[in-house]
Amino acid sequence: MKKTLSITVFNESGVLTRISTMFSSRGFNIESIAVGPTETPGISKIIIILPADTYTLEQVIKQLNKLVQVIEVKDLSSCPCVERELMLIKIKASPIHRSEIIEIAEIFKARIVDLSDISITMEVTGDPGKIVTIQELLKRYTILEIVRSGKISIQRELGINTEFLKNL
Amino acid sequence: MKKTLSITVFNESGVLTRISTMFSSRGFNIESIAVGPTETPGISKIIIILPADTYTLEQVIKQLNKLVQVIEVKDLSSCPCVERELMLIKIKASPIHRSEIIEIAEIFKARIVDLSDISITMEVTGDPGKIVTIQELLKRYTILEIVRSGKISIQRELGINTEFLKNL
Repeated sequence: MKKTLSITVFNESGVLTRISTMFSSRGFNIESIAVGPTETPGISKIIIILPADTYTLEQVIKQLNKLVQVIEVKDLSSCPCVERELMLIKIKASPIHRSEIIEIAEIFKARIVDLSDISITMEVTGDPGKIVTIQELLKRYTILEIVRSGKISIQRELGINTEFLKNL
Repeated sequence: MKKTLSITVFNESGVLTRISTMFSSRGFNIESIAVGPTETPGISKIIIILPADTYTLEQVIKQLNKLVQVIEVKDLSSCPCVERELMLIKIKASPIHRSEIIEIAEIFKARIVDLSDISITMEVTGDPGKIVTIQELLKRYTILEIVRSGKISIQRELGINTEFLKNL
């Protein structure tokens, strides 16, 4: 099962190497990783998605907590969260196909960010499901390039989301 | 000066460790990193932002190209690019302050993604300038949590952007 880890760290040279070494030395293949600054200068947050069982993940969390640069490790897999990802996607599009593609963009609330005679580039934000769906829809036009940010997550304040309601 | 590198890699266990080791062993502190899948299964793209001069960066690119998992390295620092980042920001907000915060969200085309009696969470997408500006504006309300994805970039097809026009 896919797990989501949120790791708060001091932003020092080498911290990412230490963390990624910890995962790779255990044979984990990180599916996505996003690293960015937080509200506090000098402190960054790393969101990692990886396939792992609960027991192994617990061991990894213990190991991560031993690193001096690590401030906090949270397992967000079972918390009600807002999950978002950003994708930039460049599609081959002559002016004839443009309106079809713009329609898809409007339905998915994607924004057109670049245009040329042969291509359209759009910015899509959403949960991983939405990202995969629009990508599937756009496959019938030729996809020239995709850049994705990796998923980021933040806890929902009231502790309720669809997954949570399914388990009631 | 800040540089942007786009590294296309085979998504194998350990590839991130090798790349981050290459940077940390040279004392580079990566400012942001975003890793996500591309249009081709098994192939990922890593976007790294780091402060470096042109000479040192050239050396790093040469070293990266020697790694077997690396397919392509592009220096996007001087290319006209669309640059985007995703931020989830949770702000302390009682119902009295809600409308003020919603106004700011509308101006910046941010989306409200979670709401409670004590907080508002919004999703903001934009270039790094926009992200920093809205964060500054929201500081007067208490910022509870920020998660940022790291910047991702894609080349503009016609090779024109504001920076390019400044140098004409």
